[in-house]
Amino acid sequence: MTRYRATAVVTLLLLVVVPGALWAQTDPLPSWNEGIARQSIVTFIQTVTDRNGPQFVPPEQRIATFDNDGTLWAEQPIYVQLAFALDRVRALAPKHPEWKTKQPFKAVLDGDMKAVAASGQKGVIEMLLATHTGMTTEEFTKTVVDWIATAQHPRFKRPYTEVTYQPMVELLALLRANGFKTYIVSGGTVEFMRAWTERVYGIPPEQVVGTTVVTTYKLGTDGKPVLLRQPKIDYVDDGPGKPVNIQKFIGRRPLLAFGNSDGDQQMLQWTAAGAGARFMGIVHHTDDVREWAYDRQSHIGRLDKALDEAKGRGWTVVDMKADWKKIFAFE
Amino acid sequence: MTRYRATAVVTLLLLVVVPGALWAQTDPLPSWNEGIARQSIVTFIQTVTDRNGPQFVPPEQRIATFDNDGTLWAEQPIYVQLAFALDRVRALAPKHPEWKTKQPFKAVLDGDMKAVAASGQKGVIEMLLATHTGMTTEEFTKTVVDWIATAQHPRFKRPYTEVTYQPMVELLALLRANGFKTYIVSGGTVEFMRAWTERVYGIPPEQVVGTTVVTTYKLGTDGKPVLLRQPKIDYVDDGPGKPVNIQKFIGRRPLLAFGNSDGDQQMLQWTAAGAGARFMGIVHHTDDVREWAYDRQSHIGRLDKALDEAKGRGWTVVDMKADWKKIFAFE
Repeated sequence: MTRYRATAVVTLLLLVVVPGALWAQTDPLPSWNEGIARQSIVTFIQTVTDRNGPQFVPPEQRIATFDNDGTLWAEQPIYVQLAFALDRVRALAPKHPEWKTKQPFKAVLDGDMKAVAASGQKGVIEMLLATHTGMTTEEFTKTVVDWIATAQHPRFKRPYTEVTYQPMVELLALLRANGFKTYIVSGGTVEFMRAWTERVYGIPPEQVVGTTVVTTYKLGTDGKPVLLRQPKIDYVDDGPGKPVNIQKFIGRRPLLAFGNSDGDQQMLQWTAAGAGARFMGIVHHTDDVREWAYDRQSHIGRLDKALDEAKGRGWTVVDMKADWKKIFAFE
Repeated sequence: MTRYRATAVVTLLLLVVVPGALWAQTDPLPSWNEGIARQSIVTFIQTVTDRNGPQFVPPEQRIATFDNDGTLWAEQPIYVQLAFALDRVRALAPKHPEWKTKQPFKAVLDGDMKAVAASGQKGVIEMLLATHTGMTTEEFTKTVVDWIATAQHPRFKRPYTEVTYQPMVELLALLRANGFKTYIVSGGTVEFMRAWTERVYGIPPEQVVGTTVVTTYKLGTDGKPVLLRQPKIDYVDDGPGKPVNIQKFIGRRPLLAFGNSDGDQQMLQWTAAGAGARFMGIVHHTDDVREWAYDRQSHIGRLDKALDEAKGRGWTVVDMKADWKKIFAFE
């Protein structure tokens, strides 16, 4: 009997010890090259999870927030959500004969991308509202699910959900294995992302924060309630809107935040201003062979002021070309 | 070796089986009397967690939403948050000499509760904004934490955090033990609740949805960012606002929802309209000895239309007097 009990104890110990053993035996970040970026991540996680260390943080406070476009997946040559909106304009055109003569819709239907670009932010918002609202939340989600199952990235000729950054997917998993709750906090609209983030990143709908449109509740004459998406922006989750929404949706300050553009600067500042150890990371797009190289002059994902602040304050800047062994899983 | 391996397997099996064994051996709902309400809860949980049953729901989809005032804690003789606002008016009065002659503040300072009541919803919102905004989010949270540590319920002479319904606290724990994520979805303002819900209900800040005030980000001249609470309501999380906010904050339809008033009717309708097994519950205040008895005529927590709908559709109506062996832990 004693021998049996001893075995049971050993079995229990093994079960308890396994996670730690796994860390040591298999590299949880195989797509990251050795270097300062990787080291700063590993050191940070070890610091806040070391129960006997001075900077230990209880698991319930381990909140990690990630921008999406340009941080978790590619945002070039255009935002994926814009590609979705363009496809929806084409698909919905038969029901909107007036679009044949109305900009920016005419430009989309003519395939005149220069004219689309010339319509600027106003044009983008107009297209977004025309394609993302005027239906129930369930109808919209179905549209996204159907689109993302078949649409392909124009350069890589693969589903957009494969044009995600493998090193960041590994980082998300490593954080979760260390008790973190991983969130997306993105300028993209929240219900566009929620349709696929759980499958692709392991991030459930309730941990996706984004731009919202006004939604209203309506009880149908059949007694069945619906939520209707109205053609009005509710709140833009970008720049200073990110810390505001982190407070509103999560109610805790992140322990770690990762972005790639000036739209993430305030989220990083808000994270940095917390007490104790904090991690602020920026993905710097430096690889014009495997992905794209852009920063201060780019119209998409401009990284200028946040890059200066990151360098001045010692935040971790990931040099995509040098730090990432592999960018996409399909490489 | 074979013997050792067999023992290890038995140990593993025991570890896996233990949760089920616990359910059978200790009553997880000791404050609930036997009856239809208790039985409907237990049956529902068993139905959706039975891996081999036709109505099994994967853990990630097990979302449970609870109203707070009148559902998880007492809302009589006045909402706890209103008691907080009144105390704050008294505390802040020295800085606001104009309140001596301005309603509803004058009425509060004079202790004239009839005049306070006469100021109606407009007066309440005015007091709420005067006491809940104009400071940083951190300053506000500290005010709530300090207040709730010492303030007492006028009837029970105990901290408000003890005037919580023990049967509901047990239900929250039972749901979590069965893989549910428990949320509060309340008309109260979100940051008033987040200051204490984790300690009192085991519900973390990120699982508290409520009424919000407009908040803005500001980078101080010292480089330190703050979030400033502005004197303007952002969104009222009540009635039709509850399903809208459930979609916005959680992005999944609840599997179970519990409320106690007409302000919860749309949340219950939205829950009921989901596919598969769903649970809709209403706490009916029927005990004028241990708590209060009120429903169709009450100004606070009016339960009229939702009671009719519950009875017509077979939702679970908890009869506080009959169904709850114990209402408060201190009894």
